[in-house]
Formats: sequence, C-alpha cells, structure tokens
Amino acid sequence: MSILVVGSVALDTVKTPFGKRKEILGGSATYFSVSASFFSPVNLVAVVGNDFPAKHINFFKRKGIDLKGLSVKKGKTFRWEGEYGWDFGDPKTIATHLNVLSEFNPYIPQEYRNSKYVFLANIDPKLQIKVLNRMANPRLVASDTMNYWIRERRRDLIKLLKKVNIFLLNESEAKQLTGEASLPRAAKAILKIGPRTVIIKKGEHGSLLFSGNSVFSTPAYLLESIFDPTGAGDTFAGGLMGYLATQKTVNKEVLRKAVVYGSVMATFAVEDFSLNRLASIGKADIAKRIKKFKALTRF
Amino acid sequence: MSILVVGSVALDTVKTPFGKRKEILGGSATYFSVSASFFSPVNLVAVVGNDFPAKHINFFKRKGIDLKGLSVKKGKTFRWEGEYGWDFGDPKTIATHLNVLSEFNPYIPQEYRNSKYVFLANIDPKLQIKVLNRMANPRLVASDTMNYWIRERRRDLIKLLKKVNIFLLNESEAKQLTGEASLPRAAKAILKIGPRTVIIKKGEHGSLLFSGNSVFSTPAYLLESIFDPTGAGDTFAGGLMGYLATQKTVNKEVLRKAVVYGSVMATFAVEDFSLNRLASIGKADIAKRIKKFKALTRF
Repeated sequence: MSILVVGSVALDTVKTPFGKRKEILGGSATYFSVSASFFSPVNLVAVVGNDFPAKHINFFKRKGIDLKGLSVKKGKTFRWEGEYGWDFGDPKTIATHLNVLSEFNPYIPQEYRNSKYVFLANIDPKLQIKVLNRMANPRLVASDTMNYWIRERRRDLIKLLKKVNIFLLNESEAKQLTGEASLPRAAKAILKIGPRTVIIKKGEHGSLLFSGNSVFSTPAYLLESIFDPTGAGDTFAGGLMGYLATQKTVNKEVLRKAVVYGSVMATFAVEDFSLNRLASIGKADIAKRIKKFKALTRF
Repeated sequence: MSILVVGSVALDTVKTPFGKRKEILGGSATYFSVSASFFSPVNLVAVVGNDFPAKHINFFKRKGIDLKGLSVKKGKTFRWEGEYGWDFGDPKTIATHLNVLSEFNPYIPQEYRNSKYVFLANIDPKLQIKVLNRMANPRLVASDTMNYWIRERRRDLIKLLKKVNIFLLNESEAKQLTGEASLPRAAKAILKIGPRTVIIKKGEHGSLLFSGNSVFSTPAYLLESIFDPTGAGDTFAGGLMGYLATQKTVNKEVLRKAVVYGSVMATFAVEDFSLNRLASIGKADIAKRIKKFKALTRF
C-alpha cells in the first residue's frame, strides 16, 4: 500500500571528519522516500526551487517515487549546512536557508488523499496538522519532529500528537519534550498525550519502542565506521513505515520487526555522504543485513 | 565449580544526584563475589584493614563466599570517594586512599590454586599476573582493568592479555588502549593481542561481545531510574563468570547467555547504594528479570 510523506527536500552542505560535500541531495522527505521505496510505493509531498538539479528528480523517478506532490517554485531550494565531530552526535548547524520552504503550503493531489499510510516528517507542526486534516481516512499516521518545534511550537505539537499513531523522536528530544531524564518515563509521558506507539532513536546506541505496556530495546547494527549520519533518522522511519505498509495488521510483533527494518535501512544511510549508499543497494543487500542483524542480537 | 576472584574490597563514599552515603561497602572483588555467589561458590582474595566492619564480613559469609583468602592487615581499609552527575557516566573521583591496598601481596591459599575459574578484577596488572602464575591449571581466566593501568602499566597489561581468555573493559578504555575510535576496530585490535573473547561494557547502552568472528550486541535492561552505578561493571562480571562456571563448555552460545546474566545482575547493583539491592534479592528475582530481558529484546 502506498505511503504519503510530507517533509523537506534539501541541498545539504555537510562536513564530517572524513571530508566535506557541498549542495548534495538531502532533506527529511528525501531520505524517508528513498528508504521506504524499497518496500512500498511512495507519494512525495514537498517543495523545491527551480534551481533543483534534474538529476535528483531522475533519481526519485528511478526509485519509483511519485512526484505529483513535489512543487517546483520560483526561487532557491532549501539549504542546510552542518558539521559533525568524531562522536557523530547532533551536528553543529552552520547555516539554514529556508528559501522556498519558508512559504511551503503542502499541495496534496486528489489521488493522494486516500493514502492509508502517512508520514509527517520534521516540519512545522502547524503544517503537519494541515496535511493530516486533508487526508480522507488514514490507517496509520507517524510523525517526527525536532528540538526547534518542541521549543517554539509546543502547543501545536501536542495537538498533533493527539492525532498520530506513532511518534518518532530522538533521545534528547524526548527529554526536552517531557522534562524527564529517564527514557522509559519520558516515553510514558508521551504515550499519555496520545500516540499509541513511541519510538526513541538513540543513534549508534539503537532504539526503544514503547507500545502500550510493551517495550522493545534494540542495539544498533555494528558498523566499523560511520561516514555521515545525516538522514539516519528519516531513513529509519522510511524502513519502518515501508515495512509496516506491506503488513496486513500492525501488532506488537510487526512493530518490532519494523523497527529492525528501520535500523538496518539507517545503516546504509550513514555509510556514505548523501544517499550515495542507499542509491547503490538492492533488496538482496537489505535481506543480507537483516540476517546479520538477527545473528548480532539473538541469544 | 568454584571461582577465584582477586581484587579490591573497599569502603566507598558515594555522591549521586539522589543522595550521599559515607563509607559503604564497595570494591571490585566485593561486587563480583556477591554477584557470582548466586551461581557458583566464590573464593575471595583481597585485603582489608583492621577497621573493616564485622557486619560486612558476616554479609560475605551469609552469601557463602569463602574468606580464607581475605587478609586482614593492621591499618585502614582502602577508601574511594566519588561523585556521579545526572548522566551517570564515569564518576568524578574525589579521593583515593589506598591504605592497606598499597602493599597488597595477594595470598592464595593452597586449596584455591586448583580453581578452574579465575577473575582478575581491576588491580595493578603486575599483581594480576602474579596471581595467575600461582594458579595450577585454570580452565577460564577473565580480567578487567581501568584507565589508570592502561596509561601507567601498559606493558604489564599487554603481557597479561596474552594469558587471559576473556578481557572486559568499558567503551572509553577500549578506545584508550587501542587508539581506535570505532569499537569493532578496537575489539579486533585487542583480540590480536591475545584474549579469545573481548567484552566491551557500554553502561546504560548495553554491551558488545566479540569472540573470534562472532559479535553479540545487547542493549541494557531498561530501568526507570538508576540510583548509583558504582560496581555495575564488576557485578556484570560476577554474573558472567558465575553463569559460565555452571556450564560444561564455553562456546559462543553460552557466552551470549553469560553476557545476558551479567547485564541482568548489573541492573540490581545500580538500583540502590552499595550492595543493598543485591543483598535483598534471590534466585527467583534473577530468573524473573532474565525473562523480562528476553521479552525486551526478542523480535
């Protein structure tokens, strides 16, 4: 079943201890779409400027991503510049130029409104709510956010959380949103607000899935070297939602497997700059790594 | 089968965000012994001063720990004072008074020399080697260390590593010892020195087991609140070795289970100051938590 995703498509300038790349393909909806496309059809809702390179459009098309919802506006594409240190934790943001994203008014083509799976990537919660209100009858809605919205749009974010089924956020965001230092307590507090399921992403330390009274803790797949962590969280979400959209029901067992698929997809995102590694893999590579992940964690 | 452990028995003064306790029972061999005693007989080799409270001696005895190797010397017991912040990472050491530990010359009673399982807790590698040389024919030798010995006794530590089967250390120590920023690479470098198995402890992020080409990654058991992390690593080692000593063979599957037992034992250590929580549990509590750990991690 097809997944609708709304979020950013960007040109990133990224510096890591291994090198620097200028104006490479990035953005939350980009990583999500490409990752999910290995599992399910994806409908992309986003905006780019008329400077957006045609090669990236062709890349989306090759991945079978539907672009009817991708608006091309006069002006420049959203640009982000960031730098990672050796710990590959939260990057230092050098510059953010919203450009055409500053007036983003998501256009949802008529045929997208019946999408059963919806992913609201990290954008203003006001826009996330707006998109959600336009959907006919989604079966499963997941959303992501960031520290900025938790601080500046807390009320809208809380309103959104009452409408989503799965909320994904990282460790520091969970603590920031709830004021709880302990992740199990933070998750409990978020579950009380509304979502049935909360997923806390811990980067190289894996992730935690809280769903009702059930908790699933999974380590990260072990990579000898992380190259560029940009997009790991959105790629995780893409694997998660992509897998869920192939399943008849979403129960606790299915959710656990979806988290493993998300974790494995994220490992491909971080092995090279931009989506270079994701662009070069096939389904067999994913299956192989899922198998290795099982071997890594079973006892 | 019985386990010989050599290490420190201490009186700790510990400050955490939850409170402060003065001169409470601590030390690497203490945590190890009590943890291992739930699985196997333990022979303790350590030194205390004649100020060491009788109630602690009685506690060891109640746990069935053999004390023939515990020397009581004229003078004061080893004291350590440390403070933890909210992240419960490496503590800040406020004071270290070696006292009788400064002239520790481990006495190995004749009947201990045939112990098949040996744990060399964190003491000077020179002493760890000395103890090992006195053992008749151990089947399995594990050792721990700390940043100080990596810096000050690197040559002796390397010599020791060629003689041990399992080497346990934490994340920052693994990086310090090898100069590798990636844990899989650090583990490979340590395996090349000698031990067949390396276990890297990552605190609240779980642990990694490297044994030949096999890698096992396990998250930490999820606690709503950590109270005092002192002794978690030695309690982990106690559960690990305690479990191994009950097994006929040590293969990769058995090692994985041993890591899970170690992880679960460590959760009891951190739930209260000193060994308070470990003193109050029974085998049924351990079995219950092992079951919960399985539920937390299977998919």
